[in-house]
Formats: sequence, C-alpha cells, structure tokens
Amino acid sequence: MALMTGEQYIESLRKLKTKVYVFGERVENFVDHPLIRPSINSVAMTYDLAQEKEYEDLMTATSNLTGKKVNRFCHLHQSTEDLVKKVKMQRLIGQKTASCFQRCVGMDAFNAIWSTTYEIDQKYGTKYHENFRKYLEYVQENDLTVDGAMTDPKGDRGLSPSEQKDPDMYVRVIEKRADGIVVRGAKAHQTGSINSHDHLVMPTIAMKEKDKAYAVSFAVPSDTEGVFMIYGRQSCDTRKLEKNADMDLGNKNFGGQEALVVFDDVFVPWNMVFMCEEYDFSGMMVERFAGYHRQSYGGCKVGVGDVLIGAAAVAADYNGAAKASHIKDKLIEMTHLNETLYCCGIACSAEGTKTQSGNYYINNLLANVCKQNVTRFPYEITRLAEDIAGGLMVTMPSQADFKSPEIGAICDKYFRGVDSVPTEHRMRILRLIENMCLGAAAVGYRTESMHGAGSPQAQRIMISRQSDLEAKKEMAKKIAGIK
Amino acid sequence: MALMTGEQYIESLRKLKTKVYVFGERVENFVDHPLIRPSINSVAMTYDLAQEKEYEDLMTATSNLTGKKVNRFCHLHQSTEDLVKKVKMQRLIGQKTASCFQRCVGMDAFNAIWSTTYEIDQKYGTKYHENFRKYLEYVQENDLTVDGAMTDPKGDRGLSPSEQKDPDMYVRVIEKRADGIVVRGAKAHQTGSINSHDHLVMPTIAMKEKDKAYAVSFAVPSDTEGVFMIYGRQSCDTRKLEKNADMDLGNKNFGGQEALVVFDDVFVPWNMVFMCEEYDFSGMMVERFAGYHRQSYGGCKVGVGDVLIGAAAVAADYNGAAKASHIKDKLIEMTHLNETLYCCGIACSAEGTKTQSGNYYINNLLANVCKQNVTRFPYEITRLAEDIAGGLMVTMPSQADFKSPEIGAICDKYFRGVDSVPTEHRMRILRLIENMCLGAAAVGYRTESMHGAGSPQAQRIMISRQSDLEAKKEMAKKIAGIK
Amino acid sequence: MALMTGEQYIESLRKLKTKVYVFGERVENFVDHPLIRPSINSVAMTYDLAQEKEYEDLMTATSNLTGKKVNRFCHLHQSTEDLVKKVKMQRLIGQKTASCFQRCVGMDAFNAIWSTTYEIDQKYGTKYHENFRKYLEYVQENDLTVDGAMTDPKGDRGLSPSEQKDPDMYVRVIEKRADGIVVRGAKAHQTGSINSHDHLVMPTIAMKEKDKAYAVSFAVPSDTEGVFMIYGRQSCDTRKLEKNADMDLGNKNFGGQEALVVFDDVFVPWNMVFMCEEYDFSGMMVERFAGYHRQSYGGCKVGVGDVLIGAAAVAADYNGAAKASHIKDKLIEMTHLNETLYCCGIACSAEGTKTQSGNYYINNLLANVCKQNVTRFPYEITRLAEDIAGGLMVTMPSQADFKSPEIGAICDKYFRGVDSVPTEHRMRILRLIENMCLGAAAVGYRTESMHGAGSPQAQRIMISRQSDLEAKKEMAKKIAGIK
Amino acid sequence: MALMTGEQYIESLRKLKTKVYVFGERVENFVDHPLIRPSINSVAMTYDLAQEKEYEDLMTATSNLTGKKVNRFCHLHQSTEDLVKKVKMQRLIGQKTASCFQRCVGMDAFNAIWSTTYEIDQKYGTKYHENFRKYLEYVQENDLTVDGAMTDPKGDRGLSPSEQKDPDMYVRVIEKRADGIVVRGAKAHQTGSINSHDHLVMPTIAMKEKDKAYAVSFAVPSDTEGVFMIYGRQSCDTRKLEKNADMDLGNKNFGGQEALVVFDDVFVPWNMVFMCEEYDFSGMMVERFAGYHRQSYGGCKVGVGDVLIGAAAVAADYNGAAKASHIKDKLIEMTHLNETLYCCGIACSAEGTKTQSGNYYINNLLANVCKQNVTRFPYEITRLAEDIAGGLMVTMPSQADFKSPEIGAICDKYFRGVDSVPTEHRMRILRLIENMCLGAAAVGYRTESMHGAGSPQAQRIMISRQSDLEAKKEMAKKIAGIK
Repeated sequence: MALMTGEQYIESLRKLKTKVYVFGERVENFVDHPLIRPSINSVAMTYDLAQEKEYEDLMTATSNLTGKKVNRFCHLHQSTEDLVKKVKMQRLIGQKTASCFQRCVGMDAFNAIWSTTYEIDQKYGTKYHENFRKYLEYVQENDLTVDGAMTDPKGDRGLSPSEQKDPDMYVRVIEKRADGIVVRGAKAHQTGSINSHDHLVMPTIAMKEKDKAYAVSFAVPSDTEGVFMIYGRQSCDTRKLEKNADMDLGNKNFGGQEALVVFDDVFVPWNMVFMCEEYDFSGMMVERFAGYHRQSYGGCKVGVGDVLIGAAAVAADYNGAAKASHIKDKLIEMTHLNETLYCCGIACSAEGTKTQSGNYYINNLLANVCKQNVTRFPYEITRLAEDIAGGLMVTMPSQADFKSPEIGAICDKYFRGVDSVPTEHRMRILRLIENMCLGAAAVGYRTESMHGAGSPQAQRIMISRQSDLEAKKEMAKKIAGIK
Repeated sequence: MALMTGEQYIESLRKLKTKVYVFGERVENFVDHPLIRPSINSVAMTYDLAQEKEYEDLMTATSNLTGKKVNRFCHLHQSTEDLVKKVKMQRLIGQKTASCFQRCVGMDAFNAIWSTTYEIDQKYGTKYHENFRKYLEYVQENDLTVDGAMTDPKGDRGLSPSEQKDPDMYVRVIEKRADGIVVRGAKAHQTGSINSHDHLVMPTIAMKEKDKAYAVSFAVPSDTEGVFMIYGRQSCDTRKLEKNADMDLGNKNFGGQEALVVFDDVFVPWNMVFMCEEYDFSGMMVERFAGYHRQSYGGCKVGVGDVLIGAAAVAADYNGAAKASHIKDKLIEMTHLNETLYCCGIACSAEGTKTQSGNYYINNLLANVCKQNVTRFPYEITRLAEDIAGGLMVTMPSQADFKSPEIGAICDKYFRGVDSVPTEHRMRILRLIENMCLGAAAVGYRTESMHGAGSPQAQRIMISRQSDLEAKKEMAKKIAGIK
Repeated sequence: MALMTGEQYIESLRKLKTKVYVFGERVENFVDHPLIRPSINSVAMTYDLAQEKEYEDLMTATSNLTGKKVNRFCHLHQSTEDLVKKVKMQRLIGQKTASCFQRCVGMDAFNAIWSTTYEIDQKYGTKYHENFRKYLEYVQENDLTVDGAMTDPKGDRGLSPSEQKDPDMYVRVIEKRADGIVVRGAKAHQTGSINSHDHLVMPTIAMKEKDKAYAVSFAVPSDTEGVFMIYGRQSCDTRKLEKNADMDLGNKNFGGQEALVVFDDVFVPWNMVFMCEEYDFSGMMVERFAGYHRQSYGGCKVGVGDVLIGAAAVAADYNGAAKASHIKDKLIEMTHLNETLYCCGIACSAEGTKTQSGNYYINNLLANVCKQNVTRFPYEITRLAEDIAGGLMVTMPSQADFKSPEIGAICDKYFRGVDSVPTEHRMRILRLIENMCLGAAAVGYRTESMHGAGSPQAQRIMISRQSDLEAKKEMAKKIAGIK
Repeated sequence: MALMTGEQYIESLRKLKTKVYVFGERVENFVDHPLIRPSINSVAMTYDLAQEKEYEDLMTATSNLTGKKVNRFCHLHQSTEDLVKKVKMQRLIGQKTASCFQRCVGMDAFNAIWSTTYEIDQKYGTKYHENFRKYLEYVQENDLTVDGAMTDPKGDRGLSPSEQKDPDMYVRVIEKRADGIVVRGAKAHQTGSINSHDHLVMPTIAMKEKDKAYAVSFAVPSDTEGVFMIYGRQSCDTRKLEKNADMDLGNKNFGGQEALVVFDDVFVPWNMVFMCEEYDFSGMMVERFAGYHRQSYGGCKVGVGDVLIGAAAVAADYNGAAKASHIKDKLIEMTHLNETLYCCGIACSAEGTKTQSGNYYINNLLANVCKQNVTRFPYEITRLAEDIAGGLMVTMPSQADFKSPEIGAICDKYFRGVDSVPTEHRMRILRLIENMCLGAAAVGYRTESMHGAGSPQAQRIMISRQSDLEAKKEMAKKIAGIK
C-alpha cells in the first residue's frame, strides 16, 4: 500500500468507530467536529508533506523491516542522520501548522519499544520483540497514526501505583488469560489520541515488584471494545464553534488535541502485548520514550517558534515600529532562543548511538538538556511576542464587530496601523499571536512545552544522573593539586 | 451623599444610557451582560470594601477639597503615606478579585490632571485647575468611577499625530466654540470604560506645536451624545456565555474589561475642559499619569499574584506534591518575585514628593523601575504556576463532562488527585490557574502587565532620562583618579 | 566627646595593640600596612562624611539614649524614617568608596542586640539589656567602630555546634566564673574586624538545649588578651604592594577587609555579656541581625553599583561607543537592576515596625527579598559592565609598561580610544571596572553580595516562613469557588 | 618530522629570539618566566595529548595536503565529523587545563584563510591560496603553534580605520615593494601570541575601498625584525611570583595569556602574503574566522566549565553540604547550562557545509548562537559556583598563614570542613574556584567568553542577518490567512 495522502488519512478515520465524548456527549462524527477538525488537519499535514518531492528526504525513509518507503513517522531510526532528519522534519511541520501535529508520540513509542522489547527478550526469553516487529510492519504498511500513550492519571503523586487508594489510577492488567490480557485504567493528556488509528500503551514510571501488574505495554485499535475518549478543553476552544469567526481564530486550520483515553476492561490478544509484568524494564521503556520525545521538542517547538517570530515581525511592520532598535533586538533575542533549542535538538541527534536492537537512540543527557530549555524559552519567546505585538492583541473587538454594518467602518478606521496595510491583515496577525500566546495554540506552545515528555523536574533528575559528576570532581582535584 | 455600596454602584450604571457594542451589535442592558458583568463586579468590590470597617483606613480618605470621607479612588494623595496606602489598597483588591478592578485609571488621572492643570494655569493664566477642582468635587460627592482615558489608536507608530494619513488617529479638537469644544477620535484599550460613569480624557504623548489640536483634556459622562464603546474580545470570553460552566471559568465572579471608546464629534462645555492646545504641557500630563499608573501596578498585580501563588500551592496539595523540595522552591521563587514588585510599589510611594499644586507625586524613576519589573515577573510567575499545576490544567474535560450522566463518574474517578480532596475542587483550582495564565484573566495579568501604563520601552526611556548618568560618571572618575 | 574625623579615627586605631597576622607574620603597624590601609580609609569615610553639613541629616542622628548627636552607625533606629535614612547613608558611602565600608555590621548588631536583650530580660529577669545600654552609650560617646561578629567557621555544615568533632567550631563558653565568662572559638569572614575598636559577638544559628554553651553574646575591645586576627587574601591583593601601580589598582584609596578573628580563651566580664546560654533566643538574635543586615545590602551595594554604572558609561565614552543603541540599553538595564535593589532597601525600611524595646525593625519578608535580589543582580551588573568595557579591561599591560621609557609611548599610542581622551584615563577607568568585576572590590561586590548576611538559601527559608502561604491558599480557594 | 611532545614544543620556543616585555622591561627568558610559563604549559598540553593513544582520534588527523598525520590544531576540516571532533578535542583540553589553551586561534585562522584565499584567487587571479597552501604545509610539517591575529586596537570605535586620527590604529600596508610589503600597526588582546612560533595576521572588520590599505593578511615568525609583544596583566597575576604560594594559585600549572603584538614596520615577503588590498574579501575572512572561533567556544569553555562544576561539587562535599537539595539543584543547573553550550558547539559543527575550497565551514547562524550563549552562561555558572563554594573562597588567609609556625595550626583548625578531609584540600579547591571566578582564569572563563571571537553585539548582528526573517514572516502570514 502506498503512503496515504492527507485526504486519505481523514477518510480512514471515518471508517473507525471511535468513541469520543465532547462536552459530556457522545460525538457521532468526530472527523468533522469543528473543535476536533483542526487537530486532524495538523496530522493530515504529516501525510501531505510526505507526498511532496521537495520534502521527500525529510518526510520519508526506507524501512529496515521491509525495504519499502515509509513515512518517517513510522520509521525506526537507522543512523544519527535519521535522528537529525527527524528533528528537521518536525521543525518543518511546526512551521506549516503552528501547532502540535501529534504524530510524534507514535514514532517515539515505536523506537523506544523496539529496543526495550529486544532487551526484555534477551533476558527473559519472551517474544515481545517479535510481536512488536509484526505490529510495526503492519503500521508501516498501512501508514497509520498511532497514539504512543504513556501518562497515567497518577492520582496522589506521593504514592506508587499499587499504593493508590483507587488501584486504577495507573493502567494495569486485571486478568491474564490464555489468549490475552484484560487491562483497566486510563491515559491522560493524550496528544492526538482521537485522531489516531491505534493506541500503543506504555507504563509511565519505573516500577518495583509490588507494582508489576502496572508494567504493561500493548497496542489496540482506537475503536476497540472498551476504549473511549473524553476531549479536553483548551483556551478559546469554542471560538471554533462561532460562525464567521475565522479571523478571531488566528489559526483557522490547525490545532492540537488532548484527551483522556479510558480502558474500560479492554481485552488485548497476546500478539499485541509488548510487556507484561517485567517491571524491571518499565523504567527503561519510560526513559527511552522520554528521551526520544525530549529530542522531538527540539524540532517541533522550534518550527512553531519560527511562525511566532515571523508573526511578531509582521505585527511590527503593520504597527509602523519595525525600525525601532529595541524591536529589532527583541526579534534577535527570540531567534537566538529558538535556535538554541534547535541546537539542542540537533546535538542530541548527532550524538546518538546504536542500541542493542539496531536502531539509534539519542544522546540522553543532551536530549534532557534540550527539553529543559524547552520548558523555559518558549515562555520568554511568547513574552517578547506580546511585547512587540502591543496590547491590541487582547483588546480588539471581534470579527463580528469588524463586519457589522453599524460599526464595522469605525473599527476599520481606528484599528488601522500603517496606512498601506488593510486593517483586517493587522487583526489577523495579532489574533495569530494571541492564539499562540494565550489561545488554543498556547496549550501546545506553552503548557505542553512545560509538561510534555515529562515535567521540568523529570529532566533535572535525568541530567543529574547522567552528568558523571564524579569524573568532573576528579578533574577539579587534579588541577587543584589534591591527591 | 454617602459612599455607594457595590450594589448602589451597579444600580447607578443602569441609569446611564451608555452605548455599547458587543459582537457587532448594540447591547441594551450592558449591566447584566454575562461578558461584561464580571468586570462590573470587580469595580463593585472597590465600593463594597470601602464599607467595611476592617478596610476603612486603606479604602477611604478625607478629601482635601471638602473635608469629607471619600473613597480613596477619588482622593488626591496628600502625603507619601497616602501613596503607600494606595498601593496597599490595590494589593488588597487584587487579592479579592484576582482581576483588574479598573478603577485605578480614574484615580491616577485625577492626581495627574490636578497638578498639571495647576502648572498650566500658572504659565498661561488659564482656569483649567479651577474647572478640574469643581469636577473632582462632583466626582467625590457622587463617588463616581471614572475612566482615565489616555491611549489613542496611534495608527502608524512611526508618525506623529498630525502626520497620520487619517487625522483622527489621535483624539483632537475639531472645533472651538464660545460654549465649548467639539472633539473627534477614539481611545483604545480603555480599561473599565463601559462601567465608568464618566470619561476623563488626556493626550497620549508629548507634542510639538504642529500637533496642538491633539493637546486636549476634558471630561464627559459616559452616555454623552456621540460617545460609544466597542467591547474587546478576551481569551476564553465566551465561556461566560456557556450554561453550567462556572467551574470551567476558574473565576466566575470577577474579570477585567477593555473597550474602544469612540468620540464621534462630541461637544464638551468649557467648564469640563482641562487642556486645550497647551501642547507644551501634554508631555507633563502624560508623564504624571504614567508615573502614577506605573506605581499602581506595584499594588494590583501583586494582589493578583498572591492569588496565583495560593492557587499553585493548593494545586500542589491536591496533586500530592506539596512536599517535594522543587515545588517548595518554586513557590518561594514566585513569592520572591511578587514581593520584589511590591517593594518597588512601596518604594516609589515612600519616596514621593509634593507637587506645586499640593498633592503628592511618586518617585518617577522608581515607579518606572516598578513597572519595568511588572513587564517581566508576572510572566515568570505564570510559568512557575503552570509548572506546579501540571498539564491537566489545559487537558481536562469540561464541566459538562464532569456533570454528564454517562461519563461524569469516569471523569471524577480518573481526575482525582489526593484521595481526601473532591475531584471538583482540583478541577476548580486548575481552572483558576488556567484563567490567570492563559484565559480571560491572563489579559490582565500578562498582557496588561506588559503594555498597561506604557510598554516596556517607554519605561526604559524614562529610566534613562532620570538615572543621572553624568553624576555616576563623576563618581567613577573620582574613584579612578581621573581629574 | 565630639564625633571623630576620619583622621582621628585612624589615629585612634594606632593606640590599640591589635594583634594582626598577614602572610603568616605578625604585623606591627597594621594602620599603615598597604594591604589593610584602603579598608581603613573606607571606614574613615564614615567619619569624614559625618562632619559635612551636606550629609549631616543622613550621617548623624540624635541618640535616644543620651539626646546627643551621634554618628548614625552608632544609632538605634527610632522610626521608619531612620531606617530609610540608614539605607540612603549606605548608598552615599558606597558611591564615595566603591567598596564595602564595613561599619554596618556594628550598627546592625546594636539594633539586633538591643531588642533581643530586652526580650530575654523580659522572660528570664536577666540584666543583659541594661548591660547593653551602658555599652552602647560608651560606643556612642566614643564614636567607635564595632565589628558585629556573627559567622562561626561551622566545620561540617551537616552537624550542629555540639555535634562537631572539634567543639570549638562555634564560639562557646568554656568557663563561667563569678566575674565573667571565658570564651573560645573564632569568627570567620569578619568584615572590618581589624580596623574596629571592639568586637561584638553574637551566635550564628538558632540552637537547641544541647548547644546552649554556644548561645553567647558579648563585647570585647579588639586588643583584648587572647584575641587575634588573620587577614584574608583578596583577588589582586598584592597589587597594593607594588610600587608605582596606583593606576593598576583601579581604586587606589578604598577597599574592604575580611579576617578570621580568633578568641583564644578570652575572659569577658559579666557587664559585657549580653546572652549566656539562653539558647531559645539565639535564633531571634540571628534573625534580627540578619534582617537588618539584609536591608543594608539594599543601600551599600546600590551605591557601589552606581559607581560601576558610571564607570561603564565612561568606558563607553572613551571607546567611542556611547551612542550605540545596545550600549545605551545595557546602561539602562544596569540602572534598572540597581534601582530595583534600592526599591527593596527602601521598602523594607518604610514598612518597618517598632519592637518591644522601642527601636525599629525592618519588614523582615521584604528585607529577605532585598538580599535575595542582591545575590543576583550585582552579578548581572558586572556582566554588563564587562560587556561594555571591552576585553582590554583584562588584557592591557601594567602601569610599568605605560611608564617605561622603552615602550611607554607604544602603549600610549595603541591603547588610545577616542582621540580627545588621554590613554591613561582610559586605562584608569578600565582598571576600576576590573577592580570591581574581578579584582579586590569584586570580593565585596560579588561574593559578599552572595554570602554576606547569609547565603541565598538562608533568605529563601525566611521568605518561605513569612510568606503566609495559607492565607494565599484561602484567597485562591475563595475565588475558585471551593468551599 | 614527527609531532612534537610538549617538552619539544617548549624547547622549540627557547630557540626563538622573541621580543617580549613584562612590567615595562624586556624579558630575556620568557619560557621560564613564572607569569608566562603556565600559559606555555597549557599549549604544551595540546602536544602531549596528541602523543597519547587514548586521544589520538580527537587530537590528530590525516592532512589533506600531505597525507601525513598532523595535530588537529594544524588541520583543515575535511568533514562535519572533523568539525565535531574539533569541539570534542577542545572540551577535552579544557578539562585538562581549566584554562584557555590558546592554540585554537591558529587552527581557526588556517581554515578561514584557506577558503577565503581560494575565493580571492578565483575572482582576481591572485596566488594567495597557493602561498597559503605552502605555508600551511610548513606549519603542519613542523607542528607549529600559530597566533591567528585579528583584533586591532581600533582607537575610536565610531570611526573606520582610515578615519582614525592615528592611521596606525589598524594594521596596514605602509609600503608595497617588489619583494614584499611593509606593515605597521598592532594586534591587541592576542591570545597565546608570545608562545606561538608564528603570527598569522588577518584584518578585523569588513572594509570599503578607502580602507584598502588595511585589508591585509600575512604570516611572520614571532621573532621577525620589528615584531615585539607586551604582556597583559591578569587578575591575581603576581601570585605566580610569590614563593610557596602554589596553594594560593588554585591552578598552579596552567593559565592563559594575552599580549599586544606590535608590528613596527615589519617586512613580509610576498610568498607570506595572503591578502593585500582586496578589501571586498576582508569581511569574508573576518566572518569565517569569527564563525570558526565562535564554534570553538562551544568546546573549550565547556571543558573549563566541567572543571568548575567538579570543583563546586568537591567544595560542597568538603563543606558537608553535598546532600542539601538546593546544592544538588545548583549543580544540575550548572550542568544544564554547560551542556547547552556543548549542544550549540556540536550542532553548528554537525550542520557544517563544504566550502568552494574543499574544507568544511560551520553553520554560521548556529555558531553565532553558540557564542552568544557563551557570553551569558559562564557568568551564571560562576555565580552558582560562588554560591556553593561559600564566602571562605575570598576570605581565607594565604598559604603563608597556613604554613606559619605561629598560626598555621590555628588556620588548620578553624578552616576545616568535614572532619575527614584535610584543611589544605578544602583550601585548594576553594582557591581553584576563586581562580576561575575572580582570579587569573576568570580572564579566560568570563571576560574572554564575553569578548573573544567578537563581543555579544557582533553575534546579534550575525544572527539577525542569517535568521531569514522574511521567510518566517511568510509562514506567519500563511497561517493567519493573509494573502
């Protein structure tokens, strides 16, 4: 089967009987739901760009499993060059959507599970790697979007999975049968879960023996019996429901998506299971997924940042302020910060190494450094964008005012910037900035930058572990003449 | 007349025939409009607290004009103690509303116009100060809320008022008559304009002779012929229109407000005019208003910050993470930054000085330093709040989901944090954080912190002018032995 | 007795038989020792300025003990105005010396011990307050400089005083006699100890009963039997020993000083004892001294910062770079940061309150916020100064090269900046910047800003304790509708 | 000829008749001069490590000119892998010396001049590239250390070379003869100039026709007639002259070096000339050298940072504070910042591209981003190191005190930290931190990080030029729906 187009992808979603709730009600046609569709469009971009000759090198790769051309989102990285291309692909799509395009979680899960299952099998003689290989061939063959699902609700953060009052606060195996397992629980904050064909579940923390029922990894189609999703609210979400408000949306076409994915006693056949009770490998799977995903942020958020820098520069043009030295300097600072993130994304890729299973893993120290910076710089970039944009970004009237027969002309008159630019253009660019700084896209560009792929403290712990402080102490003692 | 209660204030608004547009249409009853009412409630708080014995010292003062007790928002500062109390009052109301309470612009305008008109009259023998005294006595007597209106639309930022292609981009006098003047133009980003009884207009920049038609200051009632307002959109504004969504609002009762105020050839009698063509005093009036208003931010935003710090701490409790050392440290950092802002607010007040006209002016260097910090620290405080809150803040479902017969129980189950706290409480506190970081209140806490009372560069220019760099150079030369 | 002049102060030091070691040897004449003299000159400035009419209001006060005029450094603060004047006095002397002028530790100790002894006596019926009153009258009468000595060597930071392997790591009472006590131990990092007339010792941490022998406060003259001091090395200290190097010094006349003060079984008569085993008041004395001293940094370091800002501006002038917008902006940023520190110094003073004993105490939360900022901003200010100065600051040859018959002309030729300024002036200003950023004064402006009056973490603990987080949580819950 | 050992390198310097001035006097034996020797030892490390099998891959390469093994410092980068190895080599030597090891300027000059001369010749038919090839073969053959000399004294920064009052403020051709050229001027801040075998001169800014006499590049041996150097003072330099002070030095063996290199009418034969009046290539040569050199800082300063992190960790151990959560967190932050710099160094290398002449050039945008971060993070790292170290770093007595028969035991007693560590070890590690934060090495780690390879503003200009802002504007317009 050939790679899907964006349109084919969208059609493929229609065939699923995915169970989705929005505002407390079951949604029959989630594909055309105005709250959800922009996030589907973002994923569709990952298909459409793969069709373009110009982007073929970044967007596609040759599968090591089948020798066929696959979308890079379904690929196992075969070299540091592949890792670098991943980051560049992500920057590209960020530039095209100014949003989270959601398909990375699957790619990062594929690569993490590939190498972890290999090492589980080496130790325990299990068949998880073989299971996973077959599953991934199927994914590649059908060019699927897969939700790599890790984060559990977690309940009380001070307690381990088995210590929670409600034992379902982490996804767990409630029954092991001859033909498969039954799982219960939920995954929270699931980026792109509704518009995925499958869910690929992993545990969310390192575990000890008492938590072994929670050490489980498996895949199921999105419309499996017992699976359903509840859509999360985003800032300004209902603007998408307003009529004639595309100007107010800032970014009419694209968006991100998060949902709660509930596994209400779901049966999974053994061939779709990739870990079951091997708790000593839970930490490895988590760490590897997190490592890849922390790398990802050095690509996608940089692409989104490019759009925000561009938007701020356009706003300055329209305000008649582009020549002010402080404006120029702020644009430089935004660029500097954004490219620093890119440096981190590139560096952890270029310094990647081969796993035992053959695919390539990023440099984990540098990937954590990358993500740690992502928890900081987008916030400063949005601050600078708000500075350049001016207060009008949050005080201007609605599109309805601009289109009103009664007061439209007044709005047009008084909100004009430089005379040569239509007022509507100025409003549009300011709304885009609002969208990214405070609105729906701020969920992706700010809060997801903070918490996606692990909260800041998670990176600090990893940085600490991998900093080889003892070696540095020895260097210092030697220089200081301490024997 | 006694000081109004909040309720009386709200009733007083109903008597006005204020002309307001929302979403392109004239609003008949703006007082009960769900988009507008929260901002009215915030102003009402300035009346209600003045009724409470506990807050009397902060909320009220004895008028130097009449000897009567007045709301401090209508008061001319008679000492540095008054200036300090102003800041403490603002912090208090910020704590009570977690919003912009909008009445400060009037207070700051009163004090700026009071001293500037005095100095105009001294130079030109005009009667503006007398006009203004009478006007202010009326305001105090009736305990009015007044929109101190400064910021013009400005069009092309690279051009002066008279150089704009459209001459109306700054408010101007289009006719001088025996009985008064006729003005045209608009004021943008007008905080609390719709729920004000009057508009008190000032010019927005220092001017030269060619711009003298723009050097105009006056007052008019909000429902004067020719005046109308167009409401600005805020992030998440329409959540206020949703049914059964008070949980999703985060802050159900309180909010801020900005609007475009249009002066469509409005007649102003001479006794309500406080500057007309004295362009050489335009800069003084702007600088003084800005000075007072930059001080204000060292009070109100600190109060709002207190609520956000508290909300983050509650979220940490509910997440079961309050004991983690990094969480504690982030709460300390938020507090440290917030109190630094307060230090600046207090310092510029305590170091205030008496004007020629008798009221007290803040230390202008320190007030600019105050505001400059306000353009930075609330952004870092929100970043830390988002860090502590966790991603759930932007991924959780709507209130409708929680109340749904079909999935409400599931939501309740999986979004619970520590077992002892109802899930709804957790959702509520996270929604409050969302409201302040990304939602409707972020307009006030972030963007207004950036641009209100002048954008960051405006403060830098003032800091530069008042830093007495030459004196510092001499100190350095003396120490260095340079004769 | 009248207030001393700087010269009289210096002569008074000659009369002391203070025992001082420098580079391993006893110094006979410490007053004229080139390493020590600059720090004596800094203290002398506190005497000289008190003689000048222009500074009388800041530099002197009327004693509440005697009704006589005293140097403010010997004064008990009688009002918030006194607290504010203290900060202004400190900024002034910082501007005059570009150094630590060392006399603050005594002033801060006086005020802390005054109120603490009062409260000890209230509880235990002791006579410490009376002892201290008499001692302070003597200090005021003789216009003494007193080393307020707090910081013990501390040994292993993880252990309490009584847990240390060597019991002398904190100053302790080794014998209680009828006529007095015998103490042993040392105080480290003692600012201005050698050029003080007396040492006024306080404990350094809150204590429990097992540590009660360490809960001791007393005063002794600097040349008491058993007391001796060992001078600390500073960056670039020995330039002061070089001949014809005054240009290389940057700041020829002024400097700071730290030393280890050893108490080698020193007898202290009871009338000079202000605490002895009342361990439950140890924390109070420490906290009060620290509070006052953290306020101090909002004055002195601001004054030093003024000189550094001036020096950077002069360097930019001499480099021909003063008109570059980025240079101007960096000077604004330096000023902004410096004035933020000043705001904190003023605010914690203006918000001070009366103690039970009658003198005024600073607002402790704000004083800790003040000092916390001091651990950050001087570092950024020095960074910006180094940026503006240019690399020549650390690569230029010595004064000996400039004065060399062989190569002096070449140096003069190639190190000239703008043609109108003598090369020597450029070198002098760059050496001053070096002195403050990397050299002897960096000890005071950087490291002392970090660790003086307690290291950053000490302030964070105090900020946490005083932030009233519970009240903030309640505010947030109320707004969020959580009952 | 084989690669030299460090010892052979030192001996080779003895054979030169290099003319050096220190403290105004000609130095006969600069090799053994205690002020200079540590910087020679640092360079010697670049030779010694190249002898070790363990480091062969990083320290050496195969010359594309001769096919022979050469020290990487003499190598033309043949791939992005070479560029990455360069950065890793620099980090390694930074770890071994905790200093600037000075030899990078030559390597960076080789690579910049190689490609620039190629392009000059392409345009003008000159023979500079051939000249340079022969010169570089000679350098490789003899394993020389070469001072890549760029920075002119510059005089008035507001004027171009030809506008200066003194025409010699930039190196210029004063005579063109049949056999060569005569040059006059000086190069300032020359890192490692005295211990280099040759000087390889480049212009320092882009030029226009009127400045063409200043567009000159050439090489001369260090002891050429007319060349002499004047040593720059460093913070704490004369500690190196003290007897028995190796403990006080912090880093006894290694250091950096800067000097003024004067060209007093020096004759250069044509075969050693690589640019002469081709002013339109001046900017290219400057930009390329700067690009390589900005990359370099992403290696060397990271290595030095490793030592400082290690030193701070050791200090925490010795203080008994290593387990405090805030100490751990500060070490993580130092590591995070340091590795961010490394990411930038790696990224600009991995993203390098081939020049027309065949060697590889770094990604210039990312190299400028790298250096811009280097102007910030080492300052924060030193601040954190000073925080962890404690004030003792700048207040402890001299080695002479510790070794004094009279007070040595007292010093040993009171400056002990944890009981298990000798006091001397604690002093040594604190002196190392002092050395790097305030002392001689701070010149390299702080000020050179700021100004080396161009001051911060130079990088900002380059970032601006290469950010392709127009493309970003188009991305934003497309998303915003602006046609």
